[in-house]
Amino acid sequence: MAALTDLYQLSMACGHWRSGRARLPASAELFFRRGPFGGAFALGAGLAQGLRGLRAFRFSAADIAYLRSVLPSTTEEAFFDYLATLDTSEVTVSAVPEGSVVFARVPFLQVKGPLLVVQLLETTLLCLINYASLVATNASRFRLLAGPDVKLMEMGLRRAQGPDGALSASKYSYIGGFDCTSNVLAGKLYGIPVRGTIAHSFIMSFTTLEEVQPRELAPLAGGEAVDLPSLAESWLRQVCELLQTPLEKTNRGELAAFVAYAVTFPRDFQGLLDTYCVRRSGLPNFCAVALALHQLGYQAIGVRLDSGDLSQQSKEIRQVLRACGAHFQVPWFETIPIAVSNDISEQSLEKFIEEGSEIDMIGIGTHLVTCPLQPSLGCVYKLVEVNGSPCLKLTEDEEKMTIPGTKTVYRLYDAAGHPFMDLMALEEEPSPRAGQELEIRVLGRLAETCKVVASAVEPLHRTYFKDGQLCEPLPSLPEVRTHAQVSLSLLNPAHRRLHDPQPYPVAMTERLHQLLTKLQEASQ
Amino acid sequence: MAALTDLYQLSMACGHWRSGRARLPASAELFFRRGPFGGAFALGAGLAQGLRGLRAFRFSAADIAYLRSVLPSTTEEAFFDYLATLDTSEVTVSAVPEGSVVFARVPFLQVKGPLLVVQLLETTLLCLINYASLVATNASRFRLLAGPDVKLMEMGLRRAQGPDGALSASKYSYIGGFDCTSNVLAGKLYGIPVRGTIAHSFIMSFTTLEEVQPRELAPLAGGEAVDLPSLAESWLRQVCELLQTPLEKTNRGELAAFVAYAVTFPRDFQGLLDTYCVRRSGLPNFCAVALALHQLGYQAIGVRLDSGDLSQQSKEIRQVLRACGAHFQVPWFETIPIAVSNDISEQSLEKFIEEGSEIDMIGIGTHLVTCPLQPSLGCVYKLVEVNGSPCLKLTEDEEKMTIPGTKTVYRLYDAAGHPFMDLMALEEEPSPRAGQELEIRVLGRLAETCKVVASAVEPLHRTYFKDGQLCEPLPSLPEVRTHAQVSLSLLNPAHRRLHDPQPYPVAMTERLHQLLTKLQEASQ
Repeated sequence: MAALTDLYQLSMACGHWRSGRARLPASAELFFRRGPFGGAFALGAGLAQGLRGLRAFRFSAADIAYLRSVLPSTTEEAFFDYLATLDTSEVTVSAVPEGSVVFARVPFLQVKGPLLVVQLLETTLLCLINYASLVATNASRFRLLAGPDVKLMEMGLRRAQGPDGALSASKYSYIGGFDCTSNVLAGKLYGIPVRGTIAHSFIMSFTTLEEVQPRELAPLAGGEAVDLPSLAESWLRQVCELLQTPLEKTNRGELAAFVAYAVTFPRDFQGLLDTYCVRRSGLPNFCAVALALHQLGYQAIGVRLDSGDLSQQSKEIRQVLRACGAHFQVPWFETIPIAVSNDISEQSLEKFIEEGSEIDMIGIGTHLVTCPLQPSLGCVYKLVEVNGSPCLKLTEDEEKMTIPGTKTVYRLYDAAGHPFMDLMALEEEPSPRAGQELEIRVLGRLAETCKVVASAVEPLHRTYFKDGQLCEPLPSLPEVRTHAQVSLSLLNPAHRRLHDPQPYPVAMTERLHQLLTKLQEASQ
Repeated sequence: MAALTDLYQLSMACGHWRSGRARLPASAELFFRRGPFGGAFALGAGLAQGLRGLRAFRFSAADIAYLRSVLPSTTEEAFFDYLATLDTSEVTVSAVPEGSVVFARVPFLQVKGPLLVVQLLETTLLCLINYASLVATNASRFRLLAGPDVKLMEMGLRRAQGPDGALSASKYSYIGGFDCTSNVLAGKLYGIPVRGTIAHSFIMSFTTLEEVQPRELAPLAGGEAVDLPSLAESWLRQVCELLQTPLEKTNRGELAAFVAYAVTFPRDFQGLLDTYCVRRSGLPNFCAVALALHQLGYQAIGVRLDSGDLSQQSKEIRQVLRACGAHFQVPWFETIPIAVSNDISEQSLEKFIEEGSEIDMIGIGTHLVTCPLQPSLGCVYKLVEVNGSPCLKLTEDEEKMTIPGTKTVYRLYDAAGHPFMDLMALEEEPSPRAGQELEIRVLGRLAETCKVVASAVEPLHRTYFKDGQLCEPLPSLPEVRTHAQVSLSLLNPAHRRLHDPQPYPVAMTERLHQLLTKLQEASQ
């Protein structure tokens, strides 16, 4: 894991080591500079895997042999010996609980320890946390749009950055509020619910009902097995009559595929409707097979659409399902879940809601896992204190300025229970109290002092890692997922809305501001 | 590896197995539907890892135990026994050589074998090939923009989708034409050249020259070691005088950091100039240390900028380097390589060229690895033939139509040696010959017949995998990289240009078109 870093970290480590500075006490902070996707918030995620990375932080003999071949030839041999001894036994990490709502410029992970190790962890931690937080945030936006009842399924395995990118996408989409994934390995490794439907290729691989093998299905309640293809065919005639659609326009291969699937999974039958024509083939064929199953005591579990105007079609499908349910006296028919997929974006969801669709489940791949609205969260990891001296970086880009010093961060809540401000204080400052009038400076308006009173004050970070070990039990994935939803639900709707949100104020105490000013003046 | 798939693949596999269709001969094709990033071409990549995935394709006992818990309860036990026997020993894969230029709708990988296995490989292959091809293509666009001489470094480790996404980014950026990566693990695993510079955090961790330890450096040619901080200080006075910039505005911590780095790596000294003010601090401090090193016989290897107007600053820096070189009679000074980074995109490169920058090396992270212009290539994998019958999928979206039948693909070259058309033929058709007049139909204009004559005809695919084994040696990474550059250089500039390229025509033979028409009519 230690080799998962940028080469310059090792050159710099050598510089520190050579200067006898390797073991100076240092603090670093991890944060992002702007809320992703145009929103005001993100979900902090990747903490557990970051901590596991820390625990496994070691240079193997092979790593060191390799480094010897790529670092400058003047690198002293003793440096490589030193690298071989490194671990995180003197590192302390505090962070927001995984799944918490976090805001721009507020550190959501802090690392303290010997300078050389703290610096070396930069790239590794960023690699493990950046995408995790990005995709969890993206997922949470889809959840906020969809509302609590629509089922959301992650299906980005084929669009992610390879196997591990896909596994991260599954895990962190789940944390962000998705219900399930299509990714079998993610289900196996993380215990995330996995779901699947059926693909066009399965349907296209059938041509005629004669291909269906075996053909017989026994009723659920027991009794004599019947020939399902024949039964489905007889239902198809009735369905086509009811829907006034020509029997000869239904695709026989599609019907065969549906029947074959139903024989194999009679309790889990679902139809993908758009391999051929939804209205004239997919839907009548599905209804025929579902009605045949119903006659034997089974219920179909759903339909899926993967092309065309999904919202419009969902309404037409619901009408047909209702009509069939009423005409053939099958009450459950009208509530058969309708699932959709096909390049679903936030915009698609907005359209579904606007048009009052009849969609019950949404499968999202590309727009979830690749986060096209903003494919990187842009987290950074900055040294804020070395050997007791706070660090300041002033550059030509003001946004790239760091806020110096080791900090404690507080979240301030209003009387309604909404967080209304995150407040950064120097570590040594006393904790602000509920009800107390606080003099603060808000980022972006640092010139003026503000006064705020909080109804409740919460320290944002917990210490998770100390002396090379976890020192706080990590919550399970479902617990993190629940925490994320709670954290989101506490947000004031003005901060939570996805477009043009009210910016969430981030502030610093007067004392921190004084330190900043002093350092700015000194560096002029 | 087999569990790295979507659940529905396994439900469908069960359906095929139950219908006795598991072992029907089948063919599938992998292709994308539109050229990525608004260009006409892509680089096909990921083949080697796809083939390794195939070789490792097996369900472990643990996989099967897990599948038993997630597939419908009605799934027969014998199906799980069958899964445990599956491998790719009857699978054949042919593909374009890795790194080749490929075009929309032209299959660049074909899989033949028993239906159940061919279908099961879909998600796995897409996961391994999609991002690989996307990022290789993205890298090749940066290379085309930068021209052959500018060094390009991949530095996206902290922005990719986790560790493995980052490793893929390093590998496939190299294939696409990058020179090196910052990712140590990628260097170690793949042998890609790794490079690194120095970070702001290193510089910020120093405050005064007193912190520099050790201080002494011996001349390259041998002799008595000198105190480098003092030597650098004396040079700094001269540099400030020459540049007419106040000595007191140079940052002492920055100078200390440069000196510490130079003591550690005297043959590899480089400066990051923008931690404080480039003009008044970074550049004078760098020149001072570089001149001190020069006095001892060493040459600095470069400077880097990470903020502000990179193009403009590179010109100013070059001027200063020239002035110092002339004034202090150090000829190599004026050619010190200038490296830049900071959110570099295609647009940045276009700006650099337009403004005649003095940039020698470009580090690209986010815009390379996350491919924000199009974060997914959208490759698909479609069955085109089952049991001797070609498959056709007609949907409401015409673009989603597949072209039926197992095909051979030819690339046609004009007299100048440029490929001018990819031609799909049915496998059983005779190979078209150079000089022969060919009757073809171009996709997008299928209604009309065209006649073309090629100066050379090349079959696009080679067979790489047969009987569960590789049957063609796979080229090394540098060989693939060279092949990619050759393949790109053969392209007609009209197809190669990055914006509004001339679309590359993809065609089918009359016989393939007849088959398509017949199937379309039959399915109406």
